[in-house]
Amino acid sequence: MELLRDDAVRECYSFDATGARCLPEAVAFLEGTEDAVELVRLCRREGLCIVPRGAGTGFVGGSVPSRGCVVASLERMNSILDVDTKNQVALVEPGVVTARLQEAVKGFGFMYPPDPSSLESCTVGGNVATNAGGPRAVKYGVTADYVKGVEAVLGTGEVFCQLERVRKCVVGLNLVPLFVGSEGTLGIITRVLLRLVPLPEMTLTFLLCFSSLEDAGVAVERIMASGILPCALEIMDITSIECVRKYRSVDVPGGIEALLIVELDGFEDEVKRAKDALLNLVSDLCREVVEAGDEEDVERIWAVRRAISPSLMEIAPTKINEDVTVPVSRLAEALSAYREVGRRYGLPVVCFGHAGDGNIHVNIMTDRDDEVLWRKALDATRDIFMSTVALGGVLSGEHGVGLSKRPYLGFQMETRSLDIYRRVKAALDPEGIMNPGKKF
Amino acid sequence: MELLRDDAVRECYSFDATGARCLPEAVAFLEGTEDAVELVRLCRREGLCIVPRGAGTGFVGGSVPSRGCVVASLERMNSILDVDTKNQVALVEPGVVTARLQEAVKGFGFMYPPDPSSLESCTVGGNVATNAGGPRAVKYGVTADYVKGVEAVLGTGEVFCQLERVRKCVVGLNLVPLFVGSEGTLGIITRVLLRLVPLPEMTLTFLLCFSSLEDAGVAVERIMASGILPCALEIMDITSIECVRKYRSVDVPGGIEALLIVELDGFEDEVKRAKDALLNLVSDLCREVVEAGDEEDVERIWAVRRAISPSLMEIAPTKINEDVTVPVSRLAEALSAYREVGRRYGLPVVCFGHAGDGNIHVNIMTDRDDEVLWRKALDATRDIFMSTVALGGVLSGEHGVGLSKRPYLGFQMETRSLDIYRRVKAALDPEGIMNPGKKF
Repeated sequence: MELLRDDAVRECYSFDATGARCLPEAVAFLEGTEDAVELVRLCRREGLCIVPRGAGTGFVGGSVPSRGCVVASLERMNSILDVDTKNQVALVEPGVVTARLQEAVKGFGFMYPPDPSSLESCTVGGNVATNAGGPRAVKYGVTADYVKGVEAVLGTGEVFCQLERVRKCVVGLNLVPLFVGSEGTLGIITRVLLRLVPLPEMTLTFLLCFSSLEDAGVAVERIMASGILPCALEIMDITSIECVRKYRSVDVPGGIEALLIVELDGFEDEVKRAKDALLNLVSDLCREVVEAGDEEDVERIWAVRRAISPSLMEIAPTKINEDVTVPVSRLAEALSAYREVGRRYGLPVVCFGHAGDGNIHVNIMTDRDDEVLWRKALDATRDIFMSTVALGGVLSGEHGVGLSKRPYLGFQMETRSLDIYRRVKAALDPEGIMNPGKKF
Repeated sequence: MELLRDDAVRECYSFDATGARCLPEAVAFLEGTEDAVELVRLCRREGLCIVPRGAGTGFVGGSVPSRGCVVASLERMNSILDVDTKNQVALVEPGVVTARLQEAVKGFGFMYPPDPSSLESCTVGGNVATNAGGPRAVKYGVTADYVKGVEAVLGTGEVFCQLERVRKCVVGLNLVPLFVGSEGTLGIITRVLLRLVPLPEMTLTFLLCFSSLEDAGVAVERIMASGILPCALEIMDITSIECVRKYRSVDVPGGIEALLIVELDGFEDEVKRAKDALLNLVSDLCREVVEAGDEEDVERIWAVRRAISPSLMEIAPTKINEDVTVPVSRLAEALSAYREVGRRYGLPVVCFGHAGDGNIHVNIMTDRDDEVLWRKALDATRDIFMSTVALGGVLSGEHGVGLSKRPYLGFQMETRSLDIYRRVKAALDPEGIMNPGKKF
């Protein structure tokens, strides 16, 4: 373990993608499980806390240090230890970059499905800590659906290890899922056993164009209630389309207020039949359908989706990026409610994301340096959370709570639930040294 | 809530399918969440403990009362509260019989996949408590893969409730999976939100006949390492075949030492292609293939599988029924090891079950009233657990630990892990009133 205390290094590990910032006491570069044990012991002795960190790509400040924290950087623990094709699992260290793992298992004919947008830079450990999703989650599920085992060094310094390569186990309590989405508050994850699935045989990609956001919402509800299970079902509202238009050329006909990107994968016949069923299902709602003819077309369609985030900065200097999630059956209502919030405060509210999961990225465009606009944006954020919960939804689908969403937890859960969560945390981290001030 | 104390009632709730027996102090018939809260309060006040009970079909004594226990019977809480086709979930009370739920959702075009052998009598709550599997688990997963939310009354009397109908959520710790497989040691489960999947279009059923158990084991390893994912892949060894033969007529050619039952389901084209791939894959190992031509054939094949358990009593008065699980890649080795244990002690050891999951029902046939045979059977049980763990396996794939497997926990896990589990339990049940003496 290398432990660095110089200012330049501490500066580099003081923030994440939210822009929130706090200097850590030191940065520890872990190289194995024993290092994590040593770091926990050291910090307990010295009265310091620990914030585990993958690539720092999070959107909620989960890996931003609190005062008196040492950053436990997992970036050097980046080995793919084993790709076990017979048992269809991979054993990896937490610092492996997600795209690298996907590429590695592809060579064996397998897919590791979770695909957060940051997959070229984020790490598996960070994905586990936040239960990361992505476009493919609608068919393949989120990170939790692939974590079969973990090894973690708890806040006590104990090593919890459950890495058996079995498909079923009812021995001991099922603690593995507890670590998934725990945002570093229970321990330092040092190894992960991941389930793999066979690569699909065929994939088709479509761009569906709608005259209204509500029509697109209804189409999503219909698709998800039918037998068709697309491997991606992404939505873009008019503001996201216009932002991207300013940023790069987009072939979208006039009068279009919403887009869906639909991807179907599986066996060839299955995919072809799903295509027919899909087109039939949306024919009365959809103004135009574009089917990708080749790899370039596919790339062009996804480039539009990926351009949203960077292009938003064209319309306002600050964005508040939420990832609320509602039951799929309430999607159309939720989209209307979010648009109404934007109107109420006179702020652009951009909606896009994982419609098939009811998981919408709601971006409130504002200016942090303009007191009036900033105040409005905070009020709009509160209203969006309240609308979401009123529709049976939750504050976060895949980003987590971290620092940013803590003030709003009371909207979704009673104090009673928080007490229960705190007691479970205390069972694994009794002194509260793991990522304090986050999530709870 | 009706609370009965008369001897006849207490007698009826004193045992499960293991035959272990202990009279409860009383039996409480719960009719809603409020009743569960009232019972927990009452028991805390009176210094009593609680054992939640579904249908009592368990194989490990998990629902057998300990001394000073009140049985919390969930059988009257048997309503299917909602089948929500838009969000593809069902909200049910714990006392719903599994087969009844399956039948109910079938009417909406959906399937609830978990199919333990006792599905005609066992309940959803019991399935959740033991994380029940079944033949279809190889493709569709176990109960844990379908539990999206639970409401449970904890050992403190608090109501934990997470029933949002969303597909993604990273708010709070992920406690829902903790209740799955917790064997009643954390609280009384009062409502369950279950994921549903669309019914498959086509199902094909095959009986594959092998000259040796090892060949059958190798076939399983090959199938599971290929892209084919059968919805059932069950194995029967020679002793199970012979037992069934004594019990009913079975059309199996001479010289056959092992059978596989393989079921393929999905879209028509997908199933047909999987069939070709399957037959190609096992052609050099398999002596004969029987394909079910109609519903009657299918029934005949599964009747053989279901006849194993009752027919075992033909060869010995007592069976010790274990459900060890190994990595699928070690299945052939495990089957050899179990047979060798039988030879060593001169006892029939019958192996059958969920080969595709590496989850084998190992039945040691003995006589509890014969001291020598009983001692041998206990030694054989110990050896089977030791072989399983040496192959990277676990003591239980779907039955749980309950009373029966507690003495063997040390084979699989260190005291350290047990400490961690106990602390997590204590966070939800600090006084230890929930199903004491089980699992840990």
